[in-house]
Amino acid sequence: MPDSNRRTITGFSNPTVKFLRSLRNKKHRKLEGKFLVEGLRLLTDAREAGRLPEMLVMATARDPHPLLDTLEEAVTTAGGTIVETSTDILAKITGKDNPQAVTGVFAEFDTGLERVDRTTAPIWLVAQQLRDPGNLGTMLRTGDAVGAGGLILLDASTDPFSVEAVRASMGAVFTQRIAVARWDEFLPWLRSGVGQLVAASLRDARDYREARYTAPCFIMVGNESQGLPEAYESACDLRVTMPMHGRADSLNAAVSAAVLSYEVMYALDR
Amino acid sequence: MPDSNRRTITGFSNPTVKFLRSLRNKKHRKLEGKFLVEGLRLLTDAREAGRLPEMLVMATARDPHPLLDTLEEAVTTAGGTIVETSTDILAKITGKDNPQAVTGVFAEFDTGLERVDRTTAPIWLVAQQLRDPGNLGTMLRTGDAVGAGGLILLDASTDPFSVEAVRASMGAVFTQRIAVARWDEFLPWLRSGVGQLVAASLRDARDYREARYTAPCFIMVGNESQGLPEAYESACDLRVTMPMHGRADSLNAAVSAAVLSYEVMYALDR
Repeated sequence: MPDSNRRTITGFSNPTVKFLRSLRNKKHRKLEGKFLVEGLRLLTDAREAGRLPEMLVMATARDPHPLLDTLEEAVTTAGGTIVETSTDILAKITGKDNPQAVTGVFAEFDTGLERVDRTTAPIWLVAQQLRDPGNLGTMLRTGDAVGAGGLILLDASTDPFSVEAVRASMGAVFTQRIAVARWDEFLPWLRSGVGQLVAASLRDARDYREARYTAPCFIMVGNESQGLPEAYESACDLRVTMPMHGRADSLNAAVSAAVLSYEVMYALDR
Repeated sequence: MPDSNRRTITGFSNPTVKFLRSLRNKKHRKLEGKFLVEGLRLLTDAREAGRLPEMLVMATARDPHPLLDTLEEAVTTAGGTIVETSTDILAKITGKDNPQAVTGVFAEFDTGLERVDRTTAPIWLVAQQLRDPGNLGTMLRTGDAVGAGGLILLDASTDPFSVEAVRASMGAVFTQRIAVARWDEFLPWLRSGVGQLVAASLRDARDYREARYTAPCFIMVGNESQGLPEAYESACDLRVTMPMHGRADSLNAAVSAAVLSYEVMYALDR
């Protein structure tokens, strides 16, 4: 009996190849509600976090690996599709000369703010108009490390489901809750419950090591080049600053979030 | 009297265009001993740090800016070359559709370890086989913020003079000393003077908030995917770890360096 969930693609012009390639583009991701995850390590992180791809795409000529077998079996059992194709076609899909031997297609997660349950974690990260996918992924990874619940992206931030952001998250995209909201949605939501809003700021700010933090603590950082708008900082319960001993007056956004998150983590544990 | 240091380039095939384009490639940078710095902000950071480009390349059709005038004058006074060209050619040089209106060519700095004077700063960052130029630039930027003296790159790290690393450094490439060395050069150099070598590590490590740091403190982080080799960790005076509350067992290399650097900065000030 042929397996209806298993297909082999041999032509570059196959519609599935076109579909997979299109997911490198944000517009198409939003249209399809899907995103790509590349490489066995990330796909295993996903599986261990209870997330499986709807479609698993592998090179026909691949090295065997027990984790790949486990993944393939889990996807098949869950009713997902297994696609086998040539290394050349996989290179075309991933846009890389040496494509990682496996790629998965996931349904995008619900990023509604109402899905955030603030009582489940002492720390939440908030980023405003973050532009760099590497910074976004790094913030998810840091959030995972400090035991944060997730990352709330305000205004027009870069897409958390881009290949670059997913890669930089080192799997945390599957374990951290991700919400996307406008500031004028976020602030009423925040004030409808408990929560301390803390900005990394230069204006009217106190030393981040001397501030008092309370859980759930929402740590907010601004855009890479402009920082936070003044109105956003004014709405915060606390503005804190990291001392700068050099010429520059700011840190990388993901670094700033990390230094502050570790301090809050220790302060809340004390 | 014509100004011998000023030229206009109108052809795409001009050798200077080819030369400038070649500097996006590491091999050519090393061959020429030059690197590119793009944008008025970075070039102004350089000037303020006492570094001027040998050649300044601007679009003929550019918006006037007082900082650009200052820069142009400084380069001319120092005997540098001013090149004017079309926006199209500038786009070809920078590889960007919307090129920043000005680019400078600098002579690479001397990255000899013997140029590091450890007595000039309480903190030095050390990275082993760092691969990502964004992480490298971010470490320079963090170093500037915590008052570090510079960054020592061990083994085959990514090039500190790539356009991406320079950009991510936000100007710190001009203020932090940069050294490049093999481990078997670095360790004898380090042990020839005072200095505490601290590794961000998972092996036999203590909580980074409970360790004792002494100046000059050399904070070492490992490669993005492998971490530090065991022999390197064993040679350290101290191995410290940042607690991880999530699924992952590591932080981004630049984040790890930053969290640790801020702790050391506070600890040394106490």
